[in-house]
Amino acid sequence: VAALSDLPVALDAMGGDRAPAEIVAGARQASQELGIAVALVGPDDGSLGDVGGIPIIPAGEVIAMDDDAAKGVRTKKDSSLVRAAEAVRDGKACAMVSAGNTGATMASALLRMGRLPGVARPCIATPLPALGDSPTVLVDAGANAECAPEWLVQFAEMGAAFFTERYGVSRPKVALLSIGEESSKGNNLVKETHGRLAATGGEAPFEFVGNVEGRDLLSGAVDVIVTDGFTGNVALKTLEGAVGVFMRILGQVFSASDETKAASEVLLPELLVRAAPLDPEGTGGAMLLGVNGVCIISHGSSSARAIVNAVRVGHDLAVGDVAGKLAAAVRPLG
Amino acid sequence: VAALSDLPVALDAMGGDRAPAEIVAGARQASQELGIAVALVGPDDGSLGDVGGIPIIPAGEVIAMDDDAAKGVRTKKDSSLVRAAEAVRDGKACAMVSAGNTGATMASALLRMGRLPGVARPCIATPLPALGDSPTVLVDAGANAECAPEWLVQFAEMGAAFFTERYGVSRPKVALLSIGEESSKGNNLVKETHGRLAATGGEAPFEFVGNVEGRDLLSGAVDVIVTDGFTGNVALKTLEGAVGVFMRILGQVFSASDETKAASEVLLPELLVRAAPLDPEGTGGAMLLGVNGVCIISHGSSSARAIVNAVRVGHDLAVGDVAGKLAAAVRPLG
Repeated sequence: VAALSDLPVALDAMGGDRAPAEIVAGARQASQELGIAVALVGPDDGSLGDVGGIPIIPAGEVIAMDDDAAKGVRTKKDSSLVRAAEAVRDGKACAMVSAGNTGATMASALLRMGRLPGVARPCIATPLPALGDSPTVLVDAGANAECAPEWLVQFAEMGAAFFTERYGVSRPKVALLSIGEESSKGNNLVKETHGRLAATGGEAPFEFVGNVEGRDLLSGAVDVIVTDGFTGNVALKTLEGAVGVFMRILGQVFSASDETKAASEVLLPELLVRAAPLDPEGTGGAMLLGVNGVCIISHGSSSARAIVNAVRVGHDLAVGDVAGKLAAAVRPLG
Repeated sequence: VAALSDLPVALDAMGGDRAPAEIVAGARQASQELGIAVALVGPDDGSLGDVGGIPIIPAGEVIAMDDDAAKGVRTKKDSSLVRAAEAVRDGKACAMVSAGNTGATMASALLRMGRLPGVARPCIATPLPALGDSPTVLVDAGANAECAPEWLVQFAEMGAAFFTERYGVSRPKVALLSIGEESSKGNNLVKETHGRLAATGGEAPFEFVGNVEGRDLLSGAVDVIVTDGFTGNVALKTLEGAVGVFMRILGQVFSASDETKAASEVLLPELLVRAAPLDPEGTGGAMLLGVNGVCIISHGSSSARAIVNAVRVGHDLAVGDVAGKLAAAVRPLG
């Protein structure tokens, strides 16, 4: 049996707005710079271009970004996403990475790898580029639009175990996303979940610090923020939109005149350093928590650099047996 | 009977992080610059300082920012918030404005002014400083943490009527906040509301354009974005947090060295112009829709300038009979 660390990361060559070129470039870069084994999952007819000797796991179909997720996985059994998930299931890859259709990535991983024992619903853990020493992990960032309180408790358990494994922080601070810090604030789901998390007490492997508000997503005040997948996805997209608007305004200001162009050149080095923690390409992507294997979900717009980071994170989490640690952290529902 | 336009705007002198000084300054400024009558609601013992001849509606109590809203309104009957709402109810003011405790502002307005006929639940309409010709109005931005689909339909009806009155746009574009543009995407509340709004058809005084995502809050793509008050408040606070982080980073970059300070002075005039639409102090505050009168909710950190804008907006909406137009727009629940 091959050691996990020798197994390649299965990289969906066909997933993402910039696939396959940026994905292939990322695979080559990861292989050269990190010395991590990578396998591209996609057509082996030469259409991926010069893959630089990286092995290809053949897959003749593609689930498009706007395909229906469940139908895509059901009907396209030879798709790069399904084949990537099967490679993990069959012990031919240590992790899968895709920048493609998020719903289909989740469905492929869930249907081919299966759920971890005791997990009611897998969820998406997205590291937000917060200020501070480490990102804040938002969970669930979009897997489950409708949630039960006991699922959110499992999201907290899995999110905390993920944070500990990923950032080396024992007993991370876990908060519930709400609309006021008092335990009486929030919708019914939040109020019910608050009571359950408050009851976990001192023996839990995380510290429940109560409610936080939307403005704490980037403040770095807590390690893990728990919410339902609807609210989480709205918040995540809201942040992305805000970043986009700020970048557009800065770009307009910088290019307004010769004087502002010159001034921007003075500021840019400092700006790049200060804004680096906010760069989503640096976080290594989101992870689907609760399936029996490592599945990294990269942003649809991922560049080669984002893919390199995702490959590194997927490899490290697999070698660290994150799935085993998540399984140990989850208390099955009564 | 005095004409509405002659009645003063009742301004809660004690509400907000910077009360009473900034509120009094805003009142004086509004009165001088806009020629709009203002009445300060608060203690008439001289503790408000030099009010510049502005009349005071006496109120001996204060509901603090962190007081329980319902209890505050029930027990502090002589509070500035309750007295401001009573002034509108009694025809002594055309509108109320407060930068104080949001929950208590809503409760005061609801309990003293009453609901408009047919309205199931009042909601908060917050103009977001979007790119484009006019802001995008988010409704409900936090009044109702738990919502029914038929309430969201009324939020759409009232939000559209508010938008038409406030920005002079007939048949505004109304969208539902969700996690994907397809009608099948979202939680149960969104999916049920989508069907009801889609059925409004061509005869509605607004155009329902389907779902939008969080990134559309600032894009200016639509006029009114409808959501439940939990999701709306999380999104609003997320935007505020993002703006704060960007400002902090820009401040650090600008002050990093003598060179960056000099460069920032070149950029600042252009930056102020381009970023002006994003300044929340310019939007005039949020409005509580569905009560029988005009109630403007200003941000807790409001400066005198924000108060001036809120007074102007409150006065204009009252003179335009926004409450009558909202009542006409709402179809009572069957």
